[in-house]
Amino acid sequence: MTAHDQFQDPLAARLLRRLRDAGPVSRAELASYLEVPRPRLLSELDSLLAAGLLSEAGPAASRGGRRSTLVELNRDLRFAAVDLGARSIDVEITDGRLEPLLSHAEPADIRSGPRVILHRVSEILAKLRADGAYQRLQAIGIGVPGPVSFRDGHPVSPPIMPGWDRYPVREVLSREHGCPVVVDNDVNIMAIGEHYGGVANMTDNLLFLKIGTGIGCGIYLGGRVYRGTDGSAGDIGHIQVDEEGPVCSCGNVGCLEAYFGGAALSRDALTAARAGQSPALAERLAGSGTLTAADVAAGAAEGDVRCIQLIRDGGRRVGTVLAGLVSFINPSMIVIGGGLAGLGHLLLAEIRSVVYRRSLPLATGNLPIVMSELGGRAGVVGAAVLASDMFYGQPS
Amino acid sequence: MTAHDQFQDPLAARLLRRLRDAGPVSRAELASYLEVPRPRLLSELDSLLAAGLLSEAGPAASRGGRRSTLVELNRDLRFAAVDLGARSIDVEITDGRLEPLLSHAEPADIRSGPRVILHRVSEILAKLRADGAYQRLQAIGIGVPGPVSFRDGHPVSPPIMPGWDRYPVREVLSREHGCPVVVDNDVNIMAIGEHYGGVANMTDNLLFLKIGTGIGCGIYLGGRVYRGTDGSAGDIGHIQVDEEGPVCSCGNVGCLEAYFGGAALSRDALTAARAGQSPALAERLAGSGTLTAADVAAGAAEGDVRCIQLIRDGGRRVGTVLAGLVSFINPSMIVIGGGLAGLGHLLLAEIRSVVYRRSLPLATGNLPIVMSELGGRAGVVGAAVLASDMFYGQPS
Repeated sequence: MTAHDQFQDPLAARLLRRLRDAGPVSRAELASYLEVPRPRLLSELDSLLAAGLLSEAGPAASRGGRRSTLVELNRDLRFAAVDLGARSIDVEITDGRLEPLLSHAEPADIRSGPRVILHRVSEILAKLRADGAYQRLQAIGIGVPGPVSFRDGHPVSPPIMPGWDRYPVREVLSREHGCPVVVDNDVNIMAIGEHYGGVANMTDNLLFLKIGTGIGCGIYLGGRVYRGTDGSAGDIGHIQVDEEGPVCSCGNVGCLEAYFGGAALSRDALTAARAGQSPALAERLAGSGTLTAADVAAGAAEGDVRCIQLIRDGGRRVGTVLAGLVSFINPSMIVIGGGLAGLGHLLLAEIRSVVYRRSLPLATGNLPIVMSELGGRAGVVGAAVLASDMFYGQPS
Repeated sequence: MTAHDQFQDPLAARLLRRLRDAGPVSRAELASYLEVPRPRLLSELDSLLAAGLLSEAGPAASRGGRRSTLVELNRDLRFAAVDLGARSIDVEITDGRLEPLLSHAEPADIRSGPRVILHRVSEILAKLRADGAYQRLQAIGIGVPGPVSFRDGHPVSPPIMPGWDRYPVREVLSREHGCPVVVDNDVNIMAIGEHYGGVANMTDNLLFLKIGTGIGCGIYLGGRVYRGTDGSAGDIGHIQVDEEGPVCSCGNVGCLEAYFGGAALSRDALTAARAGQSPALAERLAGSGTLTAADVAAGAAEGDVRCIQLIRDGGRRVGTVLAGLVSFINPSMIVIGGGLAGLGHLLLAEIRSVVYRRSLPLATGNLPIVMSELGGRAGVVGAAVLASDMFYGQPS
């Protein structure tokens, strides 16, 4: 029996998750919330206290009658949340309630391959341990920028992750850190994060659109992530928006990512700067020798017409694809996140305009399209939720 | 307590559905299949026998030891399955195992409104009763060609059903026939039917594409129908395929339905016949004064170039939309049904060609795209499944 198996009991799982989400709670409130007879609850609490998962947290506020005592999650519980992007590593250590304790972010190229990247993840974890963030990890959640076999814990044919195909990420990290590990797609963990701790809390059917170097979509339906038959659901960057369009890195023509996303935007910004279409971009290019989405955002903020146009064109393409997906899946909310969410309200306005015009009125009548509240943290928050769900016995 | 409520007990529901799907079964096999202690099973069986839902069906084949006796669903159980199309009414009466007993189909115009259409449904049911199909109905399942609030049992803003918006279909039929009624979208019941009794049996993530007068998609994910936030999921006929395209009946431009589907195909066939582009269609138009999809199919079968081209163009448009949905939802099977499925392998070949070329390789590697096995019966089979699921206590 592993540390994980012993908490598969539904009552223990519900109890632990309640304490994660609500903090210190009295025994009386727990019995009432979980709708279990008090003797059964007390016996379960005793086991969890004995196992070191819970601790006493003093007396509850008096409600008359016998004083109830509070219980809470053991304050030493620790989860590690890792969000691997195409060009970044984000790590956060949380306590059992998913409150962040220490974090670390650094640039990295996912194309360096799994050995280099996972070694670096382990170095970061060791540093965070040395800094006092944890002594022992209960579980690790990790997101990667490509399709994942959730069951097998490894990437599957990820287009932008050479060397990662079927690399045993779960086994490698689990062996190295002596705890269970759960691996998912980066967009899925962002959707989970935003649902758990962001603007989409309480939302049933959520689409989380990540616009970063590439474009992907996390799908949260009926209270759980939908991952698809092969783990590639939400991979919308290569949906065709124009059959006469430019050639994409995937070999097809007119893909959404061939028009928009970090890579396409850098390309178009360079072209505009060199063609003399944008004074703002030309100046930035001369200064730094390169152009990114941030330069386009800055140019647009200064009123540079070409920068504004680039963002609006991109928003229109994204909106066109999204409008079709809205008609198809009839979601209750759309959240926009990822690096290019920094393009701000110009992008959001264009996406909204197209979706509201192009989707069926019934599907958009009550459909909010909003920016991610968690921003760059959505991924690590979701990875921590996944890790804790697994540890507390409730797979997401 | 209604007739429905009393079977909400999970064991009774599982037991009844097992007998629906497997036929007469011995008590011994049931106990083993349902994984319940024999005394609990026997007591449940006694209640259901006493309630008249089950009957004894003779001795089981001997396996040595004491002879077990078979039980089966009471042979008098009856469900009514109704499939309302834009231009048709299909009704089937089944026994408790969903075997069809008598059926009736006739043309009808859904635009006649709910009073006329539901009155006609009741007349058909009365006729089938007079013909001996049933004495009493346990439940009715009905599909309608538009978005439905599954919870409320009525259509919601259905574009091609004037007068039906929020019309209390469930209450009206339930009062008239004295049994519970379940109302769903026509494409959803087709997906349920094909999953239960057709080619998609055992499929986890199914898209059922209906190409009839309009175009819609039933979405079956993780073993259940996904209906969307407002009941309009799968409404893909108005996804844009070309922003320079023709004006659609919905007011937007370039919608899939503006290019293909029964209505668009009739229009294009007439144009072709009148412009002298198709000898086969001109001859048919002269003969009957009108042209439908069947004429285009017949023309294509005779080798008429314009007819073949119309079907291939339509398949290409459908395939383009479907390719995007495949990348997005990563299904395990796509089934094509509806009236225009009669266009046959020419249509299927074109759809396949586009989807396999345009979707991500990971999502199409093991993706069958096939014709409906149930054909015109998919809707009534699904409606009967829904009705029986409700009656047996397991909402779909």
